Amino acid sequence: RINGSRLWDSLMEMALVGPGLRGGCNRQTLTDEDKQGRDLFKRWCEEAGMTVGVDSMGNMFARLEGAEPDLDPVMMGSHLDTQPTGGKYDGVLGVLAGLEVVRSIRDQGITPRRPIVVVNWTNEEGTRFAPAMLSSGVFAGVHTQDWAYAREDAEGKKFGEELARIGYVGDEPVGQRKMHAMFELHIEQGPILETEGKDIGVVTHGQGLNWLQVTLTGQEAHTGSTPMPMRRNAGLGAARITDLVHEIAMSHQPDAVGAVGHCDYYPNSRNIVPGKVVFTIDFRSPSFDTQADMERRLREGAAKIAEELELGLEIEQVGHFDPVTFDEGCVAAVRSAAEKLGYSHRNIISGAGHDACWINKVAPTAMVMCPCVDGLSHNEDEEISREWAAAGTDVLLHAVLETAEI
Amino acid sequence: RINGSRLWDSLMEMALVGPGLRGGCNRQTLTDEDKQGRDLFKRWCEEAGMTVGVDSMGNMFARLEGAEPDLDPVMMGSHLDTQPTGGKYDGVLGVLAGLEVVRSIRDQGITPRRPIVVVNWTNEEGTRFAPAMLSSGVFAGVHTQDWAYAREDAEGKKFGEELARIGYVGDEPVGQRKMHAMFELHIEQGPILETEGKDIGVVTHGQGLNWLQVTLTGQEAHTGSTPMPMRRNAGLGAARITDLVHEIAMSHQPDAVGAVGHCDYYPNSRNIVPGKVVFTIDFRSPSFDTQADMERRLREGAAKIAEELELGLEIEQVGHFDPVTFDEGCVAAVRSAAEKLGYSHRNIISGAGHDACWINKVAPTAMVMCPCVDGLSHNEDEEISREWAAAGTDVLLHAVLETAEI
Ligand SMILES: NC(=O)NCCC(=O)O
Ligand SMILES: NC(=O)NCCC(=O)O
Repeated sequence: RINGSRLWDSLMEMALVGPGLRGGCNRQTLTDEDKQGRDLFKRWCEEAGMTVGVDSMGNMFARLEGAEPDLDPVMMGSHLDTQPTGGKYDGVLGVLAGLEVVRSIRDQGITPRRPIVVVNWTNEEGTRFAPAMLSSGVFAGVHTQDWAYAREDAEGKKFGEELARIGYVGDEPVGQRKMHAMFELHIEQGPILETEGKDIGVVTHGQGLNWLQVTLTGQEAHTGSTPMPMRRNAGLGAARITDLVHEIAMSHQPDAVGAVGHCDYYPNSRNIVPGKVVFTIDFRSPSFDTQADMERRLREGAAKIAEELELGLEIEQVGHFDPVTFDEGCVAAVRSAAEKLGYSHRNIISGAGHDACWINKVAPTAMVMCPCVDGLSHNEDEEISREWAAAGTDVLLHAVLETAEI
Repeated sequence: RINGSRLWDSLMEMALVGPGLRGGCNRQTLTDEDKQGRDLFKRWCEEAGMTVGVDSMGNMFARLEGAEPDLDPVMMGSHLDTQPTGGKYDGVLGVLAGLEVVRSIRDQGITPRRPIVVVNWTNEEGTRFAPAMLSSGVFAGVHTQDWAYAREDAEGKKFGEELARIGYVGDEPVGQRKMHAMFELHIEQGPILETEGKDIGVVTHGQGLNWLQVTLTGQEAHTGSTPMPMRRNAGLGAARITDLVHEIAMSHQPDAVGAVGHCDYYPNSRNIVPGKVVFTIDFRSPSFDTQADMERRLREGAAKIAEELELGLEIEQVGHFDPVTFDEGCVAAVRSAAEKLGYSHRNIISGAGHDACWINKVAPTAMVMCPCVDGLSHNEDEEISREWAAAGTDVLLHAVLETAEI
């Protein structure tokens, strides 16, 4: 078993880097706080006897040598970046649990045949630079590095420039590391495990994601003196499409979710009819058909709304992945680790996207989930118990050790 | 008649201060650009033989001495601040037309009995600091100065601090200047005069305004992994209330308008169900009853929407004025000036709020309107013709001279 209090101390220490205003974290990707978090992780990894490599997307790989260094390593990891008002565990747990697994292996003087690598993937959250899971996506060949470098934040700063600014453009070309398998531990971010009192989620699938950025163009005009029939109100269009998103997702219960999380009015003045509104729809489902149906109905409905209100309409896909089926062997390793350790468990579908979803395209991959309080995540109040964190990390340890062939 | 090309040149020169990105202006109140515009106006006034006083709200009063300096002066004016994406004429025309009237009076060697004062009222637009017409409101005793000083912009900067920062806290206590009457020339900001081919609007009334700032509070949660029934989506509530605002205004056609021009999502992240949305409703009508009915239905409907979606709801009135009836004598002076000069004219109700609406509470007041192209305002494409500007200023000259008793 791993050392649960050492793990917890590291989680709490990392949470002090880029603290949120209400007890959570604000360590958005490629900010100064992200750099500080990375530097701390690097130091911890070196203290634990690992060597740290960085690739050209800023992905960090901390390697513990195996008895047979030429074998492909087993990887574990997740991400250290957070939402602007994020929790202390989303992503962070998966990275620091990897570190704790290595610390525990060394405590016990074990040397597996295969090397073990702990990964921190860059820009998983996708808030500052869309899409989410950007750098695991480039690693897996889903996006090109040039395209990723050109992603812009809301202020127009480019991903590539910000990566260079914090000094994390590594000399290793992205995607060249071979791996035998990868495991990602993550909090569930939903209510199922807690509600059912299960210690461990054995993640068999991940639901698909579709981010559609909508730009509605009307005409800026005075809200007092412009007669109603003369208005082309982009805000009204955005409101109706936002309601439509909800209606579409509700029609597919319980197999879909949908919401608008990001919405910007222009020029955003109390007495100007909005001339432009830009917002992003997030549709998800474990079913390919449902994903396709939701997009089709959205496009049809939005076109109708835009026509009625005489608005220009552009829809751009700014994030997308298909539903994922994780590797049978890796999933079995997670399940048997939970069994062996006596933790209660159930199969689960991940509602969120994860770096593991992309890595699954290039290597056998699976995920371990642990519960979180009230299913709450992407919220500073996100909480887990020490026991949940320790149980998940125990399972990670055993799944990795089995795969790395001790 | 006034000198139309001198007036136009001044309008074009002022438009270069805080130029917009698309040919209009961005000279928001109490910014460095506002200071520059004020300095330029002050210089022009002094060159035209006036002395410039500033009150504690930054209102600027340029005075041309009368034959009988002890008589209360006749004022003309409007505002030099603009929307973030505003036009070159909204407000500016009324101030620079006042300057042109004085220049013309001096050209002709006339000295009216009463002093003449050209005013620039601070923060008419209300975009950076709500409410609109803030400083004419303090002048008229509608708001206290302390309350006005405490108004905050989106970054939390206070009105009083920003006024001091640009050096425009005058030594004259606000509201102490006596006046015999005030006239404000303004572009219509609506389509009526242009459509009917009239040169001049004789403004008899102004419609009432009601700004309701709504704060909806839900719960930040992951847009992927939070089941639909567990969500408390503040964005969905904002969307439904935005649609309700439209529906309510449409039910009172043609005697009301309503829209949401300002809307902020928090934390505004693509994969976070919005935990909070703050937006402002602008309802207007020339009828007291309609204003009351719209607010009542809005409150009822919003409460229902918030209850259904399990959202917290706060509604704060951040701007309000009742429908206005301008002074009969001043209105008659405007009408007879238009008659005498041979300009076509009609009575009109102002759809927008104006400083004159507040000043009307403390002194006889009226407004002159000139057409604007396509009724467009609060838009960088706002446009007027030189002829329209000159006609409006001619009428202003004659109404003022009659009232100032040459
Ligand atoms: N796990 C997680 O929150 N990832 C961010 C990408 C997503 O929105 O699912
Ligand atoms: N005239 C004008 O645009 N004033 C701003 C206040 C309002 O919104 O009516």
